[in-house]
Amino acid sequence: MTARVQSVLNEVEYIVGYKTYIDLIRSFITHQQIVATGMRQEIDRCREAIRLAAEGHRVAVVSSGDAGVYGMAGIIIECLEQENLLDLPLEIIPGVTAASAAASMLGAPLMHDFAVVSLSDLLTPWEVIEKRVRLAAEGDFIFALYNPKSNGRPHHIETVREIVLRYRRPDTPVGLVREALRGEESSVEITTLADFTNHPIDMLTTVIIGNSQTRIVGPYMVTPRGYKL
Amino acid sequence: MTARVQSVLNEVEYIVGYKTYIDLIRSFITHQQIVATGMRQEIDRCREAIRLAAEGHRVAVVSSGDAGVYGMAGIIIECLEQENLLDLPLEIIPGVTAASAAASMLGAPLMHDFAVVSLSDLLTPWEVIEKRVRLAAEGDFIFALYNPKSNGRPHHIETVREIVLRYRRPDTPVGLVREALRGEESSVEITTLADFTNHPIDMLTTVIIGNSQTRIVGPYMVTPRGYKL
Repeated sequence: MTARVQSVLNEVEYIVGYKTYIDLIRSFITHQQIVATGMRQEIDRCREAIRLAAEGHRVAVVSSGDAGVYGMAGIIIECLEQENLLDLPLEIIPGVTAASAAASMLGAPLMHDFAVVSLSDLLTPWEVIEKRVRLAAEGDFIFALYNPKSNGRPHHIETVREIVLRYRRPDTPVGLVREALRGEESSVEITTLADFTNHPIDMLTTVIIGNSQTRIVGPYMVTPRGYKL
Repeated sequence: MTARVQSVLNEVEYIVGYKTYIDLIRSFITHQQIVATGMRQEIDRCREAIRLAAEGHRVAVVSSGDAGVYGMAGIIIECLEQENLLDLPLEIIPGVTAASAAASMLGAPLMHDFAVVSLSDLLTPWEVIEKRVRLAAEGDFIFALYNPKSNGRPHHIETVREIVLRYRRPDTPVGLVREALRGEESSVEITTLADFTNHPIDMLTTVIIGNSQTRIVGPYMVTPRGYKL
């Protein structure tokens, strides 16, 4: 969490968020009133936050990782537009996105160009996602995969593996990080492109697939930037 | 800056870094000894930090943005490997990378899949960079471009514009953020794919090019995630 988030949380009257994320910031909650809603109630959360802000209250909407990467920032702006309230003061505070958090637990896999792709097809057609995976694989981008697997679509990650294998060696390093930087909840595994789908992967996992240069250095996964040592 | 960085800076005996970045954290320097080096002296910096750590000192190496994204994390691991010191304790602390910082000042452009590409050809052949730009453009990835322009290669950004224009409308929103989140040093502009290279761009600028869905909403640049409002 950034220092800016800490000071803003301390200044607001209301904190609005998905209840799991509210639990993660319990230690910062003192005087603030909490509006916690369930999963997939993003729009309700925005409307409630905007209603409170329009009444003159100071409101923080919390998101995990970076609110600006697949997070709440966009939908808040879209709701403000719909309600003709774009003149309400809004500060978007960036955070450490899951790609960065996961990378830090693996070593330094993101030292070179990378593609961030969500495998969730709730809001995006699977054909679009699959095309992006193919093109980024061909471009030798490192991958940071968000929302890699859910019960509703267990096979997508296997399709990704098959596509990337057309362009990269089977022993390409792959890092699996679950609940990155959440203390004892976190887990880290470094495996290979050939094998990674045999390991546990769920919606709380971030998958980092190396590019053609990525290698294992001791306990770390590293993509060299290209310096001559 | 994250709370974890603040507490680690407070605990170490030495802070090693590029002198411009040391200047940015002056207010956190109390008792620590400073080892500041010039631009492009990354390897010297690593060797000095490792030498001090091997002597038993607690040392922080600072990087701007996220040390794990084109930053110092990778080269430190590579230097540790070369010096047979991979057993030295190492913590990589992630930060807010320039893509996230710039996005937060523009609105919410990174609500969908994006590609992070550095246009610096100091360590990467330009042909590789150009190929990646072409494939990510075809894949309708939002772009976050790092190191977009230097005196040595003023035309690369123009080539990027021409490539992306083959796949996207001329009025696709483009955000230019200089020195993101550095207070009064920061500047922000929202322009278009057709026109953005007519605006000032330098090595301290992060360029965010929208995808086919990105639009301007009031003062903000937003890529809708796809929610039905």
